[in-house]
Amino acid sequence: MKNVDNHKRKNSHRRKPGKTPGLPPGSLVHHGRRRTDNVHIRLVDYSATHIDEIHVNDLEKLADYSAKDSVSWIRIEGLHDVTVMERIGQIFDLHPLVVEDILHPSQRIKVEEYDRFLYFVVQLLPVKHPPSNGNEWDVEQLSIVLGDGFVLTFHENTSEFFEPIFERLRTMKGRLRKRDSGYLCYTLLDMVVDRYWFLVSALGEKIDMVEDGIFRDDDAVTLNEIHGIKKRVIQCRRLVREMNRLCETIMREEFQFFDRSFNVYFRDLYDHSLRALDNVEHHRESLTNLLEIQMTLTGNRMNEIMKTLTIFSTIFIPLTFIAGIYGMNFNTNRSRWNMPELNWPFGYLFSLGLMIIFASGMILYFKNKKWL
Amino acid sequence: MKNVDNHKRKNSHRRKPGKTPGLPPGSLVHHGRRRTDNVHIRLVDYSATHIDEIHVNDLEKLADYSAKDSVSWIRIEGLHDVTVMERIGQIFDLHPLVVEDILHPSQRIKVEEYDRFLYFVVQLLPVKHPPSNGNEWDVEQLSIVLGDGFVLTFHENTSEFFEPIFERLRTMKGRLRKRDSGYLCYTLLDMVVDRYWFLVSALGEKIDMVEDGIFRDDDAVTLNEIHGIKKRVIQCRRLVREMNRLCETIMREEFQFFDRSFNVYFRDLYDHSLRALDNVEHHRESLTNLLEIQMTLTGNRMNEIMKTLTIFSTIFIPLTFIAGIYGMNFNTNRSRWNMPELNWPFGYLFSLGLMIIFASGMILYFKNKKWL
Amino acid sequence: MKNVDNHKRKNSHRRKPGKTPGLPPGSLVHHGRRRTDNVHIRLVDYSATHIDEIHVNDLEKLADYSAKDSVSWIRIEGLHDVTVMERIGQIFDLHPLVVEDILHPSQRIKVEEYDRFLYFVVQLLPVKHPPSNGNEWDVEQLSIVLGDGFVLTFHENTSEFFEPIFERLRTMKGRLRKRDSGYLCYTLLDMVVDRYWFLVSALGEKIDMVEDGIFRDDDAVTLNEIHGIKKRVIQCRRLVREMNRLCETIMREEFQFFDRSFNVYFRDLYDHSLRALDNVEHHRESLTNLLEIQMTLTGNRMNEIMKTLTIFSTIFIPLTFIAGIYGMNFNTNRSRWNMPELNWPFGYLFSLGLMIIFASGMILYFKNKKWL
Amino acid sequence: MKNVDNHKRKNSHRRKPGKTPGLPPGSLVHHGRRRTDNVHIRLVDYSATHIDEIHVNDLEKLADYSAKDSVSWIRIEGLHDVTVMERIGQIFDLHPLVVEDILHPSQRIKVEEYDRFLYFVVQLLPVKHPPSNGNEWDVEQLSIVLGDGFVLTFHENTSEFFEPIFERLRTMKGRLRKRDSGYLCYTLLDMVVDRYWFLVSALGEKIDMVEDGIFRDDDAVTLNEIHGIKKRVIQCRRLVREMNRLCETIMREEFQFFDRSFNVYFRDLYDHSLRALDNVEHHRESLTNLLEIQMTLTGNRMNEIMKTLTIFSTIFIPLTFIAGIYGMNFNTNRSRWNMPELNWPFGYLFSLGLMIIFASGMILYFKNKKWL
Amino acid sequence: MKNVDNHKRKNSHRRKPGKTPGLPPGSLVHHGRRRTDNVHIRLVDYSATHIDEIHVNDLEKLADYSAKDSVSWIRIEGLHDVTVMERIGQIFDLHPLVVEDILHPSQRIKVEEYDRFLYFVVQLLPVKHPPSNGNEWDVEQLSIVLGDGFVLTFHENTSEFFEPIFERLRTMKGRLRKRDSGYLCYTLLDMVVDRYWFLVSALGEKIDMVEDGIFRDDDAVTLNEIHGIKKRVIQCRRLVREMNRLCETIMREEFQFFDRSFNVYFRDLYDHSLRALDNVEHHRESLTNLLEIQMTLTGNRMNEIMKTLTIFSTIFIPLTFIAGIYGMNFNTNRSRWNMPELNWPFGYLFSLGLMIIFASGMILYFKNKKWL
Repeated sequence: MKNVDNHKRKNSHRRKPGKTPGLPPGSLVHHGRRRTDNVHIRLVDYSATHIDEIHVNDLEKLADYSAKDSVSWIRIEGLHDVTVMERIGQIFDLHPLVVEDILHPSQRIKVEEYDRFLYFVVQLLPVKHPPSNGNEWDVEQLSIVLGDGFVLTFHENTSEFFEPIFERLRTMKGRLRKRDSGYLCYTLLDMVVDRYWFLVSALGEKIDMVEDGIFRDDDAVTLNEIHGIKKRVIQCRRLVREMNRLCETIMREEFQFFDRSFNVYFRDLYDHSLRALDNVEHHRESLTNLLEIQMTLTGNRMNEIMKTLTIFSTIFIPLTFIAGIYGMNFNTNRSRWNMPELNWPFGYLFSLGLMIIFASGMILYFKNKKWL
Repeated sequence: MKNVDNHKRKNSHRRKPGKTPGLPPGSLVHHGRRRTDNVHIRLVDYSATHIDEIHVNDLEKLADYSAKDSVSWIRIEGLHDVTVMERIGQIFDLHPLVVEDILHPSQRIKVEEYDRFLYFVVQLLPVKHPPSNGNEWDVEQLSIVLGDGFVLTFHENTSEFFEPIFERLRTMKGRLRKRDSGYLCYTLLDMVVDRYWFLVSALGEKIDMVEDGIFRDDDAVTLNEIHGIKKRVIQCRRLVREMNRLCETIMREEFQFFDRSFNVYFRDLYDHSLRALDNVEHHRESLTNLLEIQMTLTGNRMNEIMKTLTIFSTIFIPLTFIAGIYGMNFNTNRSRWNMPELNWPFGYLFSLGLMIIFASGMILYFKNKKWL
Repeated sequence: MKNVDNHKRKNSHRRKPGKTPGLPPGSLVHHGRRRTDNVHIRLVDYSATHIDEIHVNDLEKLADYSAKDSVSWIRIEGLHDVTVMERIGQIFDLHPLVVEDILHPSQRIKVEEYDRFLYFVVQLLPVKHPPSNGNEWDVEQLSIVLGDGFVLTFHENTSEFFEPIFERLRTMKGRLRKRDSGYLCYTLLDMVVDRYWFLVSALGEKIDMVEDGIFRDDDAVTLNEIHGIKKRVIQCRRLVREMNRLCETIMREEFQFFDRSFNVYFRDLYDHSLRALDNVEHHRESLTNLLEIQMTLTGNRMNEIMKTLTIFSTIFIPLTFIAGIYGMNFNTNRSRWNMPELNWPFGYLFSLGLMIIFASGMILYFKNKKWL
Repeated sequence: MKNVDNHKRKNSHRRKPGKTPGLPPGSLVHHGRRRTDNVHIRLVDYSATHIDEIHVNDLEKLADYSAKDSVSWIRIEGLHDVTVMERIGQIFDLHPLVVEDILHPSQRIKVEEYDRFLYFVVQLLPVKHPPSNGNEWDVEQLSIVLGDGFVLTFHENTSEFFEPIFERLRTMKGRLRKRDSGYLCYTLLDMVVDRYWFLVSALGEKIDMVEDGIFRDDDAVTLNEIHGIKKRVIQCRRLVREMNRLCETIMREEFQFFDRSFNVYFRDLYDHSLRALDNVEHHRESLTNLLEIQMTLTGNRMNEIMKTLTIFSTIFIPLTFIAGIYGMNFNTNRSRWNMPELNWPFGYLFSLGLMIIFASGMILYFKNKKWL
Repeated sequence: MKNVDNHKRKNSHRRKPGKTPGLPPGSLVHHGRRRTDNVHIRLVDYSATHIDEIHVNDLEKLADYSAKDSVSWIRIEGLHDVTVMERIGQIFDLHPLVVEDILHPSQRIKVEEYDRFLYFVVQLLPVKHPPSNGNEWDVEQLSIVLGDGFVLTFHENTSEFFEPIFERLRTMKGRLRKRDSGYLCYTLLDMVVDRYWFLVSALGEKIDMVEDGIFRDDDAVTLNEIHGIKKRVIQCRRLVREMNRLCETIMREEFQFFDRSFNVYFRDLYDHSLRALDNVEHHRESLTNLLEIQMTLTGNRMNEIMKTLTIFSTIFIPLTFIAGIYGMNFNTNRSRWNMPELNWPFGYLFSLGLMIIFASGMILYFKNKKWL
């Protein structure tokens, strides 16, 4: 029960390998952060005609439910108790490598077929509280085991993610109650894709704001901020792409618990994830463009400032030179060739006029050249 | 009947998912903007020998027409009335997910095969009024359901898009009247590709103008404008690419309502869309090149200005220094070594000559070095 | 007979779609520029033993020739007379979409198989007069219809392209006279690839000259010029790539008029076009590199100039400051602390010496730092 | 026994070819650096019930062990004695090209199937002492020959790499003792992937530190350092990618010593390597981003400094000009138009006031323009 | 016998097409530079028991040898005598297009299967004298015809390339003498790959030197030099890639003269070429990185210089201003407000002190801001 993930909470993309180096494969060690104090196991057993909700305290009762004809949804919250996990694995005859994967957060999104069940790993993004600072989102791993007549879900937090589904089950409305465990599993995957959609859209709005800010020359748009958005877009892209590949796999391979009637549903799901992927790729391209545009605009503004300042200085240079000329101390008494202007009655005005002519000439020249 | 699309009218590429998160799949909720007040349903029933145009008020009559031997084109304008949509779905036996897709704007361009019909989604671009500002085009979704002897088209606006086809149907000229519903569907797709062509060409002309402007150093070409064109090119590219893939799918898969005689037509259509794709890719590459060239040219011009100004300043620096020398107040009476020039009869002219020599020397030097 | 291509003569890559929007597919309208006043039709009928050259005035005679045992090469120059095209289409039983394609310039390079003939579209580049300004080459479309015992070629200009082939036919030398219509068609395609080769080589030499110019710091190499060459390289690349794909298609698919003995010839042709493609890709990469190198070299030179000028100015700044010091008017009579240097016998020389020491010190410092 | 690798110890990625040019293929020459003085051969012979560890001095005894029913792990340390290698090759009937490959360090990671054995080449990275300077890691090649009932491992150094496996074998815990030679081989590969994981994570932490440093404007982050990390990331990427491909090959092809029960293990291994690859790709992208950001930030800071300095200078320029004006020596006695200010009672204060007004005005202007 | 290649000796990558435009395919014209005055034909006839070396003067004798049971290696040096080539083509029944290809240098690396022989084209790089200037290497084409019991090699120069093979044949050592013509051909290909390896390694060392030079700020590393290395790396990459593809083709397709026992050899060869390709790709990436790093470092150094100079100037500006103030000529007699400092006993020291305070303040400020 080590807590090796702690020092890299910052960038959750850096996923840990499945086990500590040196341990044999299949060793059951919990690698996630311990988030809840107790393991909560809830069971929803339903068919078209009945629905039971039970808070399970005795693991052994699970075996009974899994054998029943109705659909049993067993929801395990908190993964830190290895003994419990091991026992569940035995009851449902899960492969040791599956239990090992459940215990380790940050697997790839994937589906694996075993003899008696399908094993899904998906990653949830926090739809409620998107972080405002420039880091990646904390992802939460959701493991789903789909068997004949039962669905197991494993996750760490007491998440509100499942509420809408509970609601739909309770109200007896819709197809959910009338169909088998495969349909429940599809519904869960569908909600995950919807979540991605929500965040992809939120990122899109953020990018629009940034774009407006850049063209309005808003100081609030910092490089740091764009970098942060980019990080989240890249995180999102990876998850959406993996989810898309998951949908494709389900469509292509004929898995046991999804009969032909599921084709149209998973085609729909695949389509949604593909569109999300399209958008997130578009976001990424937009961000790259925006970064370039911002750099160009910043550079142009800086150049404009420097040019103006330099022109300003340049205009004064010959004026100062003229003033320097008439500040020379040549002896006007020695000869009439020595700075006769100093003794002219209007010498001062002559020099000022000279300066004005020079300055105007230069300004006209620069205007003509469109430098000003 | 929510209006969730409103806050992102600006960038229509950000397509919404098929449903509100939490709703079960297949829920019929209208997600587009409500554009017309009433749902208009028009029916054109034709064969080689007759043609009828009817404005349908009673949905139930549609069932009769769809069963007839002639080709029935039923055109539904305005998608906001969910009840109507649901009833049409029942009459023509459409899958709930199809009706859901029809109600949601901004799907991918796609074709889906169902048992008794083909379902197409395409996106129309506004050929009449290309926007002059730098945003994307508003797309309008057109859903086509091709069944045995009938074609359903669903769209939001009372669009003039279909007029030329109506015209061709009425005049009894051409193959259209003599052939089946599949040919009508092909004609619709053909018009969509023609529209893309038109816009791709319009973008090309715009890019030519921008290129001319850049090399003529036209101030009217702003970064903002090029960015706007690029956005539209990218939007266009996505649509054309999806349309191209649609054509390829039809060519490759042997769909039920397109017999072998359609091969040559869809090969032609595929060819057209492929050429449009070629051009739009070329536009994109051109724009990237133009942006780089503009940046380089802007940079070069700025450098040229700064160089000229700096050289100008540099020439004056030693002159001012000489004037500074002869502005020093050393006591010429104390010794003959203290600034004897001040008492020379031609000291002033000597100093001016010194300055002229310095300035000319520097100018020659810079000319020699090709800095000037 | 519209002239819609006129306004985009500049960039010929922007190919028009196959028809005016709104027209039904297969409508016969001539879209190219009318280049010759009369349609010239020449017929070369040959076998191993005889060769006839006829200038055809009466279209109906063509039918007789096409039925003969010998090879008939019918060469149609000028495509603007739609009636003639239509009649030829009827005589040789061409599909309406083929005639439509022949009438529209700027199709993709392609081959299409029909029941009784093969239809090729290729694009000719003007080998004689490569344009010196920075635009793309004008391409001319050549349509070839290869049937059993006859070859039709359609093009707009009275081109000298075919002369070498006529020559070889007349001289009775080589395989050409002894073989069938497929070999004539192969010979035509072979000449098109040779033309591409010629232009790819010409571009390569141009690029070498530009490279030399850049490293010799030649002012004649402008950004505009490189941009122009790049445009032509990109145009060339597209055509060569399409031609390469055409050869590949012929190799892969077993077309009717090319028996097994053609395999080795088309493998050779494919090889040539692949090498041309290699080279043109290499040209493109070289140009991109050269642009970067030119930008870097230009930047470095500019930096060098600015550095030199700034160092020059910097050396004078403390000198001018010293002159400024001794130009101050403190009253030397008031106290012996007020600018005693002014009254020193060698004050002036002292100040000049100070300046020389400062200047030398700075120059040494900059030399030491390798800034100078 | 040449030492040709010496001059390129620096960048170990530059792998040597399999032989000296001119030598026939299959020549046995040792190309690695000689690292140990003696060849150590250790043998571990085990089954579920027994385990023997022997230090082998007489090569001929190996033949006996390889024939036994138990699993024999023969570990050869030090590859410089070609005679020994040759003899081992004969005993285990290895192909000459395999022995040649074993003797040459820096092969690709690969698996090759021979009639009676599988031959693996993998590359070990030094997990204990990651280098702090900017060079690549020294890799050590590990060759594994998996036969029926025996595993041969060849490597140069007395490496502590195998210790954990020895430990697991000795303690009789876990599956390792109960299973065949294939499982031992899998365990070795599993440890290699774990090592890569460790280093990929270490690189990730390093990159996080660099990122923090860049945004905190830390001078400790030098271009040289980032370049060094990038080199190691690229090295890591190549190895991980090859390892991933190795796992994929084993999964796809049905190799002789891995029966169906191995599928789930190699799928797991493939998954781990794929995640490592994901991360290392992500690292690479991050580094590229960071380099760009650092360049931009450095440029922005430099621009900010130059702007501030230029504005400072610009403010003083008109002030110095005014001082220059009143330093002119026009004869105030000659006319009342000649610099009357000099004789005003408050002329000095007037001039100072003028300067203050100018300076304030410019500062306000710059503040208003947000340049300051 | 034209010499069309002369004007592009510089960049040998620009390969000529197979024939002069307008010539019929299969025309035998020699397109390479004539390098030797006489065609040398040497024959090595060997089996496990005998070896004969003959200098062939009479072409007709070749027919006898090719029919014998032993392996005949016929080595033709100098390709300019078309009559000889034609006769050899007839004796060994080569296809005219093969003879045409042999006569033209700079074909792609390829293998072509004909009914009675395999035709290889490979490109040799000059391993002995790698050019020091920045151009590409001169390649020499080697054509190999592998038939039943004979191998023909065609090349232009009296090359020392074959010496090691002759040596191995003579010494009767190794497999070469005991095996058939296919093994001889494999040995030749193996030597070509070894040559590529040698040059890839040489390029790697060159790049290491450049990298060291860049980080040591060595003036010897010019942009021109890096550009030259890049050109050679790109040339190398193209050849290695084509060679790799050649090996792959041989592995995949079951060519007639390579029985199953060759599989392991060609797998080895493929592996070597793949590693060479890896390295050359790595070199290319390194060069791109180095160019960027060099540009950044150059830019940073220039910025550092400009900053230092600007700060230096900036410090003097207020000092010169103060000197300017006290150089004003206000009449101190008119009022006590007019420049009283001029009459202070310590006015001069006061002004100097003011300057020192200003200068120190600014230096401290800049140090504080880390600008200095």
